[in-house]
Amino acid sequence: MEYYQLNHSNLIDYLQSLPEVLLRFSSFDDLEVQEIKDGNMNFAFVVTNKQDSNQSVFVKQAPPYIKVMGEQWPLTRQRMTAEIHALNYQSSVCPEMLPEIYYQSEVLSVVIMQNLSKHGILRSELIQGRYLPRLAEDLSTFLAETLFYSSSLALSSIDKKNMVSNSHNHDMCNITEDFVFTYPFEHHEMNAYNPALSQAIIDSIQKDPDVRKHVAEMKYMFMNKPEALLHGDLHTGSVMVNQLETFVIDPEFSFAGPMGFDLGALIGNLYLSYFSHAHNTSVESLNYSQWLLQTIDDLWYKFEAKFLSLWSEHEQSAQSTFMGKDLTGDSHQIFRQAFLQQVLKDSLGFAACKMIRRILGVAKVADLMQFEDLKLRAKLETQALKMATKMLLNRQSYKSIADVNKLAEDLVAA
Amino acid sequence: MEYYQLNHSNLIDYLQSLPEVLLRFSSFDDLEVQEIKDGNMNFAFVVTNKQDSNQSVFVKQAPPYIKVMGEQWPLTRQRMTAEIHALNYQSSVCPEMLPEIYYQSEVLSVVIMQNLSKHGILRSELIQGRYLPRLAEDLSTFLAETLFYSSSLALSSIDKKNMVSNSHNHDMCNITEDFVFTYPFEHHEMNAYNPALSQAIIDSIQKDPDVRKHVAEMKYMFMNKPEALLHGDLHTGSVMVNQLETFVIDPEFSFAGPMGFDLGALIGNLYLSYFSHAHNTSVESLNYSQWLLQTIDDLWYKFEAKFLSLWSEHEQSAQSTFMGKDLTGDSHQIFRQAFLQQVLKDSLGFAACKMIRRILGVAKVADLMQFEDLKLRAKLETQALKMATKMLLNRQSYKSIADVNKLAEDLVAA
Repeated sequence: MEYYQLNHSNLIDYLQSLPEVLLRFSSFDDLEVQEIKDGNMNFAFVVTNKQDSNQSVFVKQAPPYIKVMGEQWPLTRQRMTAEIHALNYQSSVCPEMLPEIYYQSEVLSVVIMQNLSKHGILRSELIQGRYLPRLAEDLSTFLAETLFYSSSLALSSIDKKNMVSNSHNHDMCNITEDFVFTYPFEHHEMNAYNPALSQAIIDSIQKDPDVRKHVAEMKYMFMNKPEALLHGDLHTGSVMVNQLETFVIDPEFSFAGPMGFDLGALIGNLYLSYFSHAHNTSVESLNYSQWLLQTIDDLWYKFEAKFLSLWSEHEQSAQSTFMGKDLTGDSHQIFRQAFLQQVLKDSLGFAACKMIRRILGVAKVADLMQFEDLKLRAKLETQALKMATKMLLNRQSYKSIADVNKLAEDLVAA
Repeated sequence: MEYYQLNHSNLIDYLQSLPEVLLRFSSFDDLEVQEIKDGNMNFAFVVTNKQDSNQSVFVKQAPPYIKVMGEQWPLTRQRMTAEIHALNYQSSVCPEMLPEIYYQSEVLSVVIMQNLSKHGILRSELIQGRYLPRLAEDLSTFLAETLFYSSSLALSSIDKKNMVSNSHNHDMCNITEDFVFTYPFEHHEMNAYNPALSQAIIDSIQKDPDVRKHVAEMKYMFMNKPEALLHGDLHTGSVMVNQLETFVIDPEFSFAGPMGFDLGALIGNLYLSYFSHAHNTSVESLNYSQWLLQTIDDLWYKFEAKFLSLWSEHEQSAQSTFMGKDLTGDSHQIFRQAFLQQVLKDSLGFAACKMIRRILGVAKVADLMQFEDLKLRAKLETQALKMATKMLLNRQSYKSIADVNKLAEDLVAA
């Protein structure tokens, strides 16, 4: 079979040809195909049995170009191969947080999976101020399990290096290198600034050699520290939630990179949400802001505890340890703590780059863009940029998330 | 053709079948085959025309086992594929420091090259106290060129990641992970200690949780920072020299790893040579010790200057820069200096691990083993171990090689 593009007219026939999909529907006589328009890169459809709306699948296909830009913006379909590879890996270690995958084809660059119709996108839920009691618990599990089990701490040296080679995702890494780590910092023509944002705050990033040095270090680490199989784009738009469940979706940027890049994406976007709420002095907003900070704190500490626990369980059952025999009984412990401290520092550096790029770069976030009052938006953007700059420059000296949370609160209070 | 093992009886026929080798000899009637016995891993032969000893080739073949251990110690021939890959790369960027390669075959795991008969092994030359005026100049060139041109600073992101995948050398990396970063630190049965070495100094390494943590960090970096195509085993036994020329040989441990690992191998072995000379109070030895320290200093500063110069030339000619446009004129400079400082810190950490493993691990160096007086040897080993421990623990705070040299001198004076 060769690649062809799925559309309204051929989709049902295609689905009917797949035994794995046949199982999902009691009948194909009355299916409704709905195209989901809001993705930028890929085509997406929801196919539902009108007789029983519980019978529903989600179909995603990557065309050999960027969907919203059209065929004149080619982009290899390697991104869907990487997404399928990541979905399979993530499902193997953390199935409860992945949509169920019914069928996948690298030839057609298509994946057919559970339709998460009873869940909302995390970013929208946060904008609406919804409390999500499982969020930190679930995402810390996802991060600990996916990062630990693909690292040198769990895999043999050979399996680890083969994992890295089998996870190439060149185009998508290039996009990140350009749009996260380069363009926002060099006054690129693709950038877009809120006209109410002061030139001084933009210059304090783009024209500060020390900031630029730190960003370049994070970019170099992004390209040269393939320590785990990452989701690669773990912002709050890549998570679906409700009060009971959390799902991680869309790993099309997946590649072997630094653990802190996934953690940082999430932490950075949660801080952006924090600034979008904390300026409002209503009791409701203040409470929600505090819940956000508590969630960031919980996310990190639960991640750390779970990662350490997976590590020690793994070494006990494997009867061998990464560092070799511990002759005094505390060497493992000290190394493991230092390891997690390094992950925290990397995470803060990446969180900072992610926050800055969402304000100075081309791709914005609704958390801030929802404010039509440009002056208010500029105030929040300034708080976020100041925070990101400090996180980036001082990332080696933070010992805990509590200190970073305090920085956020101080900036709002100032 | 399938793999078969070359030996005295089939070697000449094999060479005669190769047009590239036919060119090297005016006649095949009177060739002498001499087996070189001192390699551990591979078979090696020198084939010379008895009528004209200038007509001579060096033949190296990897068997599917460790040569000195025999067929019951299997080892894949991937090491020769990696060596051939590295020789081709190194020859492409730095031909003047590589033996001329006449022929190579991955199928037979064989390489046929220039016979360096007029050069001595650097380690032996250092033991004999020979001054080598070109050493720092040449090796700094080799390091700057091979490390820069295989890095993300020179290659496109895609070419860089493909380079990493094409440079796998699993068995040899495993050997390094075990014999450099693990066994020497865990009182492994394969270790061998000078009986005159005090238990206290051994314990100060193996039973210090802080030392163990730092070694584990270096091991993790060795496995998770594929920033350049390394030689992989650049000690003073992998360099051939005379007064006029320097050649780097034997890259069978080559893989994509941290730049500091090659620099550290060389620096660590030069410090071992320093301790083997500096205890002797003769004017001759004192002068030679000072030359060694000066050579280490020159090696680093020349490397740094050449690397920076390649970097800025490359970015000028490519009309693009790693970090993006520099809006103030000094961002590039600050990033580049910080980058090289990080390479120095990594190098000191790796140098320390290499020094320790040569004293506590199974593989020793002649620089120290030449001393039959075990107490004298233990004194020098203790100096080297104390130095390595400090270099390792304080590697983040050294700003220059001069400070490290002073540490070496202070330990000898103490």
